[in-house]
Amino acid sequence: MTNYDQFLSRAAARMKESAIRRMGTVIAARRDIISFAPGYPAPDTFPWAEFRDIATELLAGTDGNVLQYGATRGYRPLLEIILGIMQKRGIASSMEHLLVTTGSQQGLDLVARVLLDPGDVVLVELPTYTGAIAAFRNVQSEMIGVPQEADGIDLTALDETLQRLRSAGRCVKILYVVPNFQNPTGLLIGLPKRARLLEWAEQRDMLIVEDDPYRELFFEDSASEADVRPIKADDAGGRVVYLSSFSKTLAPGYRVAWIAAPSALASKFEMAKQAEDLLTGSLDQRIILEACRRGVLDRQLPILRRHYQHKRNVMEQTLRRELSDLVSWPEPKGGFFLWLTLPDVLDADAMIPRAVEQGVIYVAGEAFFVDADAPTTPGPRANTMRLSFSAPTPERIEEGVLRLAAAMRAELAAISRSPEASPAAR
Amino acid sequence: MTNYDQFLSRAAARMKESAIRRMGTVIAARRDIISFAPGYPAPDTFPWAEFRDIATELLAGTDGNVLQYGATRGYRPLLEIILGIMQKRGIASSMEHLLVTTGSQQGLDLVARVLLDPGDVVLVELPTYTGAIAAFRNVQSEMIGVPQEADGIDLTALDETLQRLRSAGRCVKILYVVPNFQNPTGLLIGLPKRARLLEWAEQRDMLIVEDDPYRELFFEDSASEADVRPIKADDAGGRVVYLSSFSKTLAPGYRVAWIAAPSALASKFEMAKQAEDLLTGSLDQRIILEACRRGVLDRQLPILRRHYQHKRNVMEQTLRRELSDLVSWPEPKGGFFLWLTLPDVLDADAMIPRAVEQGVIYVAGEAFFVDADAPTTPGPRANTMRLSFSAPTPERIEEGVLRLAAAMRAELAAISRSPEASPAAR
Repeated sequence: MTNYDQFLSRAAARMKESAIRRMGTVIAARRDIISFAPGYPAPDTFPWAEFRDIATELLAGTDGNVLQYGATRGYRPLLEIILGIMQKRGIASSMEHLLVTTGSQQGLDLVARVLLDPGDVVLVELPTYTGAIAAFRNVQSEMIGVPQEADGIDLTALDETLQRLRSAGRCVKILYVVPNFQNPTGLLIGLPKRARLLEWAEQRDMLIVEDDPYRELFFEDSASEADVRPIKADDAGGRVVYLSSFSKTLAPGYRVAWIAAPSALASKFEMAKQAEDLLTGSLDQRIILEACRRGVLDRQLPILRRHYQHKRNVMEQTLRRELSDLVSWPEPKGGFFLWLTLPDVLDADAMIPRAVEQGVIYVAGEAFFVDADAPTTPGPRANTMRLSFSAPTPERIEEGVLRLAAAMRAELAAISRSPEASPAAR
Repeated sequence: MTNYDQFLSRAAARMKESAIRRMGTVIAARRDIISFAPGYPAPDTFPWAEFRDIATELLAGTDGNVLQYGATRGYRPLLEIILGIMQKRGIASSMEHLLVTTGSQQGLDLVARVLLDPGDVVLVELPTYTGAIAAFRNVQSEMIGVPQEADGIDLTALDETLQRLRSAGRCVKILYVVPNFQNPTGLLIGLPKRARLLEWAEQRDMLIVEDDPYRELFFEDSASEADVRPIKADDAGGRVVYLSSFSKTLAPGYRVAWIAAPSALASKFEMAKQAEDLLTGSLDQRIILEACRRGVLDRQLPILRRHYQHKRNVMEQTLRRELSDLVSWPEPKGGFFLWLTLPDVLDADAMIPRAVEQGVIYVAGEAFFVDADAPTTPGPRANTMRLSFSAPTPERIEEGVLRLAAAMRAELAAISRSPEASPAAR
């Protein structure tokens, strides 16, 4: 037998399966399960008829390039549309700053490969997005978490962490943030804090990687377009690498997203992408382009805001009714996620079998924490979980929370019956 | 001004733009130019009507998963179809060996990331595919080239190179080959040599990365299905990582390809892909699946073989008529490429401006060589070029060769007028 371990790179030896995508396997195994696990958009909101018309026209065969190889930077007319989208977000950009990516996950991966060497430190919000953790881990960088307050990342802790790491001789170049409806907490970084982050980056010679997939999905009862102004919009010094995507506003199956970055970095991202997948799908790019050109995207946005706001309402109402004595969460003012803190005695990961038994699934909070063993960073919080309210119907959300409540109360009862089985004893 | 060099990883500092894709910029600038540069399939051969019907049906909205996130491994029914394709190629595989990739370029990149550390050596054919060079370079590995004979890689040189490198303490784990209609030479590795390569890999504890995008495009006047039997087909010991693609047989704009590998490696490729782009486009995968299911792929193959064989004929005939006193090449028995050797005094790269002036473009051979400065490897051959006959019409191929002949003769005349301008003097 061939021993394959000897063939693995150091990076590969450290690679792990995503906790969220592992949940996908659990879901696939049980059809009736209600899933609050992956952050999937609701497919019944997709503009199917428009997509069908667009695809039918594009595949007429009159333009051979629709299915041909194309530029690594992206299809030029799509880049021009993206330029307009950026402008509407307050970001003055130009073609040499832009790059189409195969989903924002590729954007994160390009950032990691172009900016990080093994052992370099990335500062991240605590908790933070698992996809970013995976991309940064795969280049053997180290992530150090900074706690969040109600208005986002704690600036005092951030600067102290940076200074401490630099004093210890560590190379720290990047802060990664999701300022709008963060994955997993749903938090929004306040506007004054965004301005101060930018000053801090200038002062400390840092780059900010601003990951912004959810900004269009602000809920009008509690947030407005002014609240989601990108950090990049005020980035006169070229300190921000900005990532955004069509996955949450049009559809994720197309894998079309983009990066806006200082041109010296954008050209390196392009070279990295050349070797990574040559180009983003040609048909996908053209479908997205036409959906923007024909006003489909603009018509979708208010529909999506109302759609997800309603689902958030149903989830919050049911949680308040069924579990207010046990759990707490910050109100999501947009996006897909609600971050739940359970009683200390509960371990969300250990509770998964009981939840599956009840017919509901979620992602245990642990997956979103980094550096479990580093004494300098707050460790994983076993009593947290991410609930995604985006994909299930309102009826299923209500039923799912009922099942979650049943699982939680059963778990508490079991723990009180046999105290030695509590998390502290494991 | 922010200095971005200080932010670059060591890998990024070494990244280069692809010579082939740079040619794309030249082509875009002049509409009337005849391009023998990129290996683009002919879009007039794409089954447009079938693709249109398939896309129209898929986008009916009855199955929300058509535009949703999905499994990183690939859409399961597509993986099952790929299993059948592998079987027809003589490869007994199973689901745990397979992974859908976003084009074979991603396959190469996953191979590089999972198997190579900085400084590791990859053995490659000389010349070799630029996309592989880019993927291996981006993980800071070193490529050492092994010359090719008429029936492919020189086995004596291969083993000598390996032994020499290992004696010098280098870590050498991978041999990368394109056995069928190699990019850029068009060469075919002979069947006895394939068997001996496999024995060699066992004996020397090596992995073979077998990149096989062109195997379906054998030309029936000079090759048969028996000649393109994959090395992987006889891989009892699990020594081969096999890559193939739908880009050359259905269309490259979909970005759908696959890897078949020992399961221990396939699961690492999956983890690397999770962080790289989460999944390959959902609609793209389903269109490819339906095109296979409905027999479109099977109907296309004989059409494509005849199509590209005819174009190869036109290119060879015109070369023989116009340039037989100056150039030589091995006959391509399949695939997209013809590898031309020019008179010693000509430098294909230096000649590009004159070719563009005449209205024709190609890729100078230098891009396909590695380790220009390593004394142990044959250096780049300035007097070589790759001509791709796949995309232009037969009429344009003939006209393009005429233009190439004019450029070559003009260059020769210029050199004979001013001998100090010859390559040797530069």
